[in-house]
Amino acid sequence: MRTDGRQWNQLRPVTITMNPNKYAEGSVLIEFGDTKVLCTATVEERVPPFMKGQGKGWINAEYSMLPRATQSRNQRESARGKLTGRTMEIQRLIGRALRSVVDLQALGERTITLDCDVIQADGGTRTTSITGAFIAMALAVNKLSKNVDYAKYPITDFLASVSVGVIQEKTLLDLNYEEDSKAKVDMNVVMTGSGKFVEVQGTGEDAPFSREELDGLLGVAEEGIQALIASQRDVLGPLGSRIGASRV
Amino acid sequence: MRTDGRQWNQLRPVTITMNPNKYAEGSVLIEFGDTKVLCTATVEERVPPFMKGQGKGWINAEYSMLPRATQSRNQRESARGKLTGRTMEIQRLIGRALRSVVDLQALGERTITLDCDVIQADGGTRTTSITGAFIAMALAVNKLSKNVDYAKYPITDFLASVSVGVIQEKTLLDLNYEEDSKAKVDMNVVMTGSGKFVEVQGTGEDAPFSREELDGLLGVAEEGIQALIASQRDVLGPLGSRIGASRV
Amino acid sequence: MRTDGRQWNQLRPVTITMNPNKYAEGSVLIEFGDTKVLCTATVEERVPPFMKGQGKGWINAEYSMLPRATQSRNQRESARGKLTGRTMEIQRLIGRALRSVVDLQALGERTITLDCDVIQADGGTRTTSITGAFIAMALAVNKLSKNVDYAKYPITDFLASVSVGVIQEKTLLDLNYEEDSKAKVDMNVVMTGSGKFVEVQGTGEDAPFSREELDGLLGVAEEGIQALIASQRDVLGPLGSRIGASRV
Amino acid sequence: MRTDGRQWNQLRPVTITMNPNKYAEGSVLIEFGDTKVLCTATVEERVPPFMKGQGKGWINAEYSMLPRATQSRNQRESARGKLTGRTMEIQRLIGRALRSVVDLQALGERTITLDCDVIQADGGTRTTSITGAFIAMALAVNKLSKNVDYAKYPITDFLASVSVGVIQEKTLLDLNYEEDSKAKVDMNVVMTGSGKFVEVQGTGEDAPFSREELDGLLGVAEEGIQALIASQRDVLGPLGSRIGASRV
Amino acid sequence: MRTDGRQWNQLRPVTITMNPNKYAEGSVLIEFGDTKVLCTATVEERVPPFMKGQGKGWINAEYSMLPRATQSRNQRESARGKLTGRTMEIQRLIGRALRSVVDLQALGERTITLDCDVIQADGGTRTTSITGAFIAMALAVNKLSKNVDYAKYPITDFLASVSVGVIQEKTLLDLNYEEDSKAKVDMNVVMTGSGKFVEVQGTGEDAPFSREELDGLLGVAEEGIQALIASQRDVLGPLGSRIGASRV
Amino acid sequence: MRTDGRQWNQLRPVTITMNPNKYAEGSVLIEFGDTKVLCTATVEERVPPFMKGQGKGWINAEYSMLPRATQSRNQRESARGKLTGRTMEIQRLIGRALRSVVDLQALGERTITLDCDVIQADGGTRTTSITGAFIAMALAVNKLSKNVDYAKYPITDFLASVSVGVIQEKTLLDLNYEEDSKAKVDMNVVMTGSGKFVEVQGTGEDAPFSREELDGLLGVAEEGIQALIASQRDVLGPLGSRIGASRV
Repeated sequence: MRTDGRQWNQLRPVTITMNPNKYAEGSVLIEFGDTKVLCTATVEERVPPFMKGQGKGWINAEYSMLPRATQSRNQRESARGKLTGRTMEIQRLIGRALRSVVDLQALGERTITLDCDVIQADGGTRTTSITGAFIAMALAVNKLSKNVDYAKYPITDFLASVSVGVIQEKTLLDLNYEEDSKAKVDMNVVMTGSGKFVEVQGTGEDAPFSREELDGLLGVAEEGIQALIASQRDVLGPLGSRIGASRV
Repeated sequence: MRTDGRQWNQLRPVTITMNPNKYAEGSVLIEFGDTKVLCTATVEERVPPFMKGQGKGWINAEYSMLPRATQSRNQRESARGKLTGRTMEIQRLIGRALRSVVDLQALGERTITLDCDVIQADGGTRTTSITGAFIAMALAVNKLSKNVDYAKYPITDFLASVSVGVIQEKTLLDLNYEEDSKAKVDMNVVMTGSGKFVEVQGTGEDAPFSREELDGLLGVAEEGIQALIASQRDVLGPLGSRIGASRV
Repeated sequence: MRTDGRQWNQLRPVTITMNPNKYAEGSVLIEFGDTKVLCTATVEERVPPFMKGQGKGWINAEYSMLPRATQSRNQRESARGKLTGRTMEIQRLIGRALRSVVDLQALGERTITLDCDVIQADGGTRTTSITGAFIAMALAVNKLSKNVDYAKYPITDFLASVSVGVIQEKTLLDLNYEEDSKAKVDMNVVMTGSGKFVEVQGTGEDAPFSREELDGLLGVAEEGIQALIASQRDVLGPLGSRIGASRV
Repeated sequence: MRTDGRQWNQLRPVTITMNPNKYAEGSVLIEFGDTKVLCTATVEERVPPFMKGQGKGWINAEYSMLPRATQSRNQRESARGKLTGRTMEIQRLIGRALRSVVDLQALGERTITLDCDVIQADGGTRTTSITGAFIAMALAVNKLSKNVDYAKYPITDFLASVSVGVIQEKTLLDLNYEEDSKAKVDMNVVMTGSGKFVEVQGTGEDAPFSREELDGLLGVAEEGIQALIASQRDVLGPLGSRIGASRV
Repeated sequence: MRTDGRQWNQLRPVTITMNPNKYAEGSVLIEFGDTKVLCTATVEERVPPFMKGQGKGWINAEYSMLPRATQSRNQRESARGKLTGRTMEIQRLIGRALRSVVDLQALGERTITLDCDVIQADGGTRTTSITGAFIAMALAVNKLSKNVDYAKYPITDFLASVSVGVIQEKTLLDLNYEEDSKAKVDMNVVMTGSGKFVEVQGTGEDAPFSREELDGLLGVAEEGIQALIASQRDVLGPLGSRIGASRV
Repeated sequence: MRTDGRQWNQLRPVTITMNPNKYAEGSVLIEFGDTKVLCTATVEERVPPFMKGQGKGWINAEYSMLPRATQSRNQRESARGKLTGRTMEIQRLIGRALRSVVDLQALGERTITLDCDVIQADGGTRTTSITGAFIAMALAVNKLSKNVDYAKYPITDFLASVSVGVIQEKTLLDLNYEEDSKAKVDMNVVMTGSGKFVEVQGTGEDAPFSREELDGLLGVAEEGIQALIASQRDVLGPLGSRIGASRV
């Protein structure tokens, strides 16, 4: 039994508030238990220099935590004058993950920037961010589709992410902060609606892990992600109907 | 008649959500219409180097806007590697204003940091921040008072702030973004519960203003601020009862 | 009686040396007592990116203090790698103030940059800077007018600035450093030759101030500024004759 | 058949030059084909601030590429003024991986810094770095053991790393640059001598991958890593005899 | 005949204004023709970390140019966020040169910082800075000697600097900006009162130079420097009487 | 007799490995005893902004030391976020020296960047860098000449550099680190194949030096440099035959 009463393979309550921001092309406030992330999608009719002239679009992500999102206050990265390695690593991950389910050709020469701002952190901020940013991106693409006549809908599949870990030889799904700090193995998995892996990042800094442990972690992660994707389908409703449709 | 239907001397609807953050010693989500600012207060048992060994405390403020708080997306200051002049100016103002109603001696050698993060911006973010940060600070001081036996309660008065401006020869209270960008005179006023000025910052970049206009602006600002202080008293209830009590 | 023997409403001796710099389009060494600021005006035939293509010019200001301008040595901002908040706030103020008396349309697509370098500081560096920078700007515009045939002279009015404050319940004009550090209320006022306010920045960090105190401060500031403008007219002589002429 | 004539599950030739640096406590020049990395280990008798007073040591890694290590020249990160996200991600990975096979308590309050400088890059720089840094670290610990009488030898196991990927539905071991840029799935695996995983980082930015593909990748990675560890045992000879010995 | 009418071996007019700054422990405004440098000396009772606990002092120099010291305006280094290589090179040179005539042991554990701020530049700013900074340093050491009873006077010799160059096969002394930009060989020489070299920096970027040319340059530099040292003796008067006295 | 057994006027053993880098247009690993520098030349078909449109090329140099090139580890400049003054000074020197023997007009609008990365440092890294960078540059120009039909060969002369110094009244050639740290006078000389000086940088921070000492230093430097140029001719062989040919 976990400290918050969950089963080993049970997600924290997921709450998704649609369009909390009046300016963004798409926005979502997503909560995995006490972890709360505001995800906004911004569409701009230009691409980064390295993508120019290819007729393709780009998906970019930025990630940040408010200074008091955590138990003790963190210095702002703007005051430090640079991003930490952790922030860079997370925002590279979010961008890469989202691009894996977008047909950049179909998107056309425009950039969607996903800002994931952690309002409160209780473990799993990167997986919460990916899961929420996917919805914000879908809202933005949908809004765009009112003006742009896509030959092909640019989002090719659903996408969500969850963390899994091993604590005292037990495999646990969706770790909160307290569990995360005790876990000997920590893994983040990103998967598509069709059940394929986009990212698998497992680390055993405190103790290496066996192939059997890895297999167990991947299994429970898959179940958790499919449940999250069901929530995504739910909140998007008809707006999600074209996702992946062009694959068939 | 203003575009949002308000009278010239009418505030936007003010909404205050108490303690939205589970970690901070005090927190408030404050809304002046569509401007939303999350204010958190962090108490740390140390003071900045320049204050050491004086037996006095310190009040510090930081201010930031989420990238999509505004109509078009702004680059993060952490990505730029430095704070803009505007941010520095605002956070210096917030800190100075709050310190004017705190007896630093009575506070003792500790620092309260007020983080004002603008979730959504529709004009008046600095006045909303000051008004909300005061409440977050009061919550933190109150929480502290459970462990610390103050000889004197450190907060000496209530404090709130509002903007005023002149558009087409008319004096208006609490400008939203659209009004702010049209105003020929723009003024921010910070006042105490006892009706004294803490900051008066008026600027007529587009057109200098007369003494009569200044007098009119100060008058309507005072009314607006006293209404905001009434809201502060309201949400603080008995927690606000000791504020300024030691003055008598 | 003040420590330097002045009356409460008396300015420090003002000394203005014209064109001390052999390269600048306009330059002034201005002294308010022991505060000495070198102001140079540079004209460049381009505007900042955000002003391009509007047929309008721009006025920009930069402010800095030499490391030993003050009683103890300050670290250079170039060595720290960034500007302090105080510097940014001051240079934004100088630029804004000067733009209020310039018709940017009449100026045409060019930028005048005013560099205010404090050689020695004894209080009032920002007000000395504004007062001197106005003259340097006028010299540069005058020099420009030999090559450019202005339909309308771009400077619409005179402009000067002074500080006022309250010490031991007394209102004082033009505070030196010692007075400034004791003042409970500190205010900087920028005004035009026609007696209108451009900036009013009053702060009562150490003690809030009443409406009556504010009124007293504004009154003495106005007198001081009009005396400074008389000095400006004096040193500019016929070069100042077109300022504001087009207003009539 | 691969462009360089290798079998799908064949490593590139591995060359290890011991102690090329006359100052470092341990150093190795390691080559995976045309990828060449100089790894130096520096021992310092202090730990980072966050580790002080715990009686434990620390392992830190830094990674960099010479500007012309690659086909076209890259700007130096020192000239840019900051590290790229890629560099930060890699050096965090190297440090984490090495710490997983070090008993920090047994190491005592000292830091070993592993500098991995890429002299020439042809794919797999991070896996080459980890494999070489392990040897440099072992040399440094061995040198230390002449002065320090370890109750327990601090290195608990061997450690190496290799990349694997999928190109045109084929699983390939140890990708060179040309292969890496064509791979639809790219995975870096770090493993111990006892066959446990320390890091598994797989990414399918260009195409998500199935569980079967993942299983195939992990299998061939394991074989490659065990071959690399055999090379490590070889070059270390008797110096490697105490590694992991304390585990039994 | 040179453009400003000087002989080939003639210095520009040298003007030295003593103690223009009311706060610094020593200050000098020095002019070599139109090149004007304000040199201030600051004494602090501490040494940099790398000098601690050795019972010795330190001499440090910083150099900067005002933005409009030159024909066209230069961006401030504080706005760029870093020092240029040229600035670093010059301030390292000034510090090194001054230290060569100071007995750091005799100075005791304190630092003298020489700030050389170029008010106007017309060639030779580094040689003017060294020559002026020596005087400011002497003033500061003299002022110190009122409180400190030196066993040995810390300044061991006079020191000055001049530039020399070759233009159209002619050797010229003390180049102004116009000459400097045409010179095929450019050399800065720093020498002591007793006629020894402290720095010789000759560069022939545009054309290598022969041993004969070098000999000619050194000869005229020596004459120029001894004339500058005569001026230093002159302005220091009795304050310079102890310089080098302890050598005998 | 010197600690490494050399005569006072004897160079350390010089080893030059040609083309160690598979990507660069020219590369050399050069060793002066235990000082090892990897020099790579990169050709890019563009020039820096300040050189545009003049039909001329540019030679640029960058210099860096690996963190453990020295006895104790140095912090990376990329981690510090900026270059040290020493690095800037050295890379400015290398670039300037190389440009003195290149006809930029003959080179055409392209840039050759010389990266000098110190793998191991035992004194004389800047002189080793210049001597090696010249060879790398010659290799790159030669490679270019296969595609470009130079009217005139762009390299006008050979170029090498050596350090000289005075220790205990003795003049020594090519100082190693131990000697360098004891030298009272330290001089770096850069010379051409035709025996002309390009740079002479002598410094007597610890003790000023006489004209006689200077003459002695220049004499032995010349001998050393001509020996280094003989080595350059040797390794370049026929590739060096066109250098300076166009001068005749």
